[in-house]
Amino acid sequence: MSPHQLALWSEAVLARVEAALDAWVPARGPADLGEAMRYGVLDGGKRLRALLVQAAAQAAGAMATEAGSEAALRAACAVELIHAYSLVHDDMPCMDNDVLRRGKPTVHVAFGEAQAMLAGDAMQALAFEVLTPEADEGAGVPADLQARLVRILARASGQAGMAGGQAIDLASVGQALDEATLRDMHRLKTGALLRASVQMGAACGGLQPDAVAWQALTAYGHAMGLAFQIVDDVLDATQPSDTLGKTAGKDADANKPTYVSLLGLDGAREEADALLAQALAALSRSGLADAALQPLSDLAHRIVHRDH
Amino acid sequence: MSPHQLALWSEAVLARVEAALDAWVPARGPADLGEAMRYGVLDGGKRLRALLVQAAAQAAGAMATEAGSEAALRAACAVELIHAYSLVHDDMPCMDNDVLRRGKPTVHVAFGEAQAMLAGDAMQALAFEVLTPEADEGAGVPADLQARLVRILARASGQAGMAGGQAIDLASVGQALDEATLRDMHRLKTGALLRASVQMGAACGGLQPDAVAWQALTAYGHAMGLAFQIVDDVLDATQPSDTLGKTAGKDADANKPTYVSLLGLDGAREEADALLAQALAALSRSGLADAALQPLSDLAHRIVHRDH
Repeated sequence: MSPHQLALWSEAVLARVEAALDAWVPARGPADLGEAMRYGVLDGGKRLRALLVQAAAQAAGAMATEAGSEAALRAACAVELIHAYSLVHDDMPCMDNDVLRRGKPTVHVAFGEAQAMLAGDAMQALAFEVLTPEADEGAGVPADLQARLVRILARASGQAGMAGGQAIDLASVGQALDEATLRDMHRLKTGALLRASVQMGAACGGLQPDAVAWQALTAYGHAMGLAFQIVDDVLDATQPSDTLGKTAGKDADANKPTYVSLLGLDGAREEADALLAQALAALSRSGLADAALQPLSDLAHRIVHRDH
Repeated sequence: MSPHQLALWSEAVLARVEAALDAWVPARGPADLGEAMRYGVLDGGKRLRALLVQAAAQAAGAMATEAGSEAALRAACAVELIHAYSLVHDDMPCMDNDVLRRGKPTVHVAFGEAQAMLAGDAMQALAFEVLTPEADEGAGVPADLQARLVRILARASGQAGMAGGQAIDLASVGQALDEATLRDMHRLKTGALLRASVQMGAACGGLQPDAVAWQALTAYGHAMGLAFQIVDDVLDATQPSDTLGKTAGKDADANKPTYVSLLGLDGAREEADALLAQALAALSRSGLADAALQPLSDLAHRIVHRDH
């Protein structure tokens, strides 16, 4: 796929995801909770996690059946709901106290802190609701796949995943973290959910944990999770705020450790390139068809070589 | 069952639930996130939701199989995790700003606001993790039951349930709510999770939504959800703080509408008694065995006639 083809593929995928989120996050409902949830999740950024779900689902052959395709759509929306809720909570005054996100006022600025907290809480619940449709609304997503998707996403979101990484991050402000601890933090804080995205897509295609292809896609997800954060740190150190759509240099200002502060700019870039090579090697040993792997391969390049 | 027998039954049930929570909410893990989660959920109050799950599971025959019994234990712990996370978030300064809960400093007082928010978030994720054990850790809870329990709990927790009710509550401060809106708020804020507790227990026994017994237990759960809140309002208006283990009269002070402000003390008590009668009538038309229904019946009396 050329960059142009990747753009076309992404556009088609994201149109479906965006339409599904628009339908599954209703504005109706009590007070303006639904509005706050929609504000937090719709029209939202790069949708990297949704793209990883969909690309892995395609690699694993999920798109060949209606149930697999529906499951992959639900998994893509669920992981975006989890990611979006984490940003809503993370932006709040008691956490990062950010007032700008994707160039817009953050949810608590627009709706108040209490509503932002509730909207985040309800977005998390909705993620698990989306993964467990009733028989008459889910295009036949089998119960064992529903349960498996919940299992993957819940573990990646909680204490041993994203929330755990955020807790390390909280505790790390002003601390001199060594590289191992920094990696551990990011493996949980952003890596767990990115890896879970790939695993959910793989599960939608019916891959089981003992399959070579499952293990290869998991290795890909692990490498990309780490690479994503390293590139994030590089961009944070080198790009102006208006390109990023958020406040640049914030982590460095808060004396938070970053890969750049630890490895230097060149070191961080080299590490990202090494992880790209690892991810591509994992794909090539997966035993899956090259054509089906193309979106995952292209996404890996895009993640490492992005400029915002 | 005499009150003494109910106490013995509760004690045995809660010993299992408390031991399971102790095992499933690990202290280990990043920073002190695990400690904050344990502080928020262990040794926690009346455990009414866990008791409702277990009583409904017993009524529906879930305890006859190892898988049904394991599922009911997991459902009891999951609903307590959801309830506990909602209290942690609700107590925070941007919500109710409570410093005392069950006679102890609230989680954000003990661990800081950021950690309290993360702990609540991770407790919600853990609830869904507990409901979806791997094949080798769940005593054979079938996947379709796992998915169904997630479906019930996620819907009851989110926008169309607990979080939605909290949003109405937020918007209602200083407003003159009519009885219909007040009922609507409580149906969501506390009622949805209490009803879901009963439904999860019923699901563990294999009851399907078209069964008479399912509908009867759902009606019981609905009536008890409403009765619980009415009695809460009565106690809030009549009992001192040290009996309640929390700040009494707070809702009235904040000019929040309550059943007592709306119906008067006597009216609220009469309404609670009428709901008790409705709940008992639902049980008697369920077609389930009287002996199996005894814990649900006794719990209904206890909910309405409790003094704290």
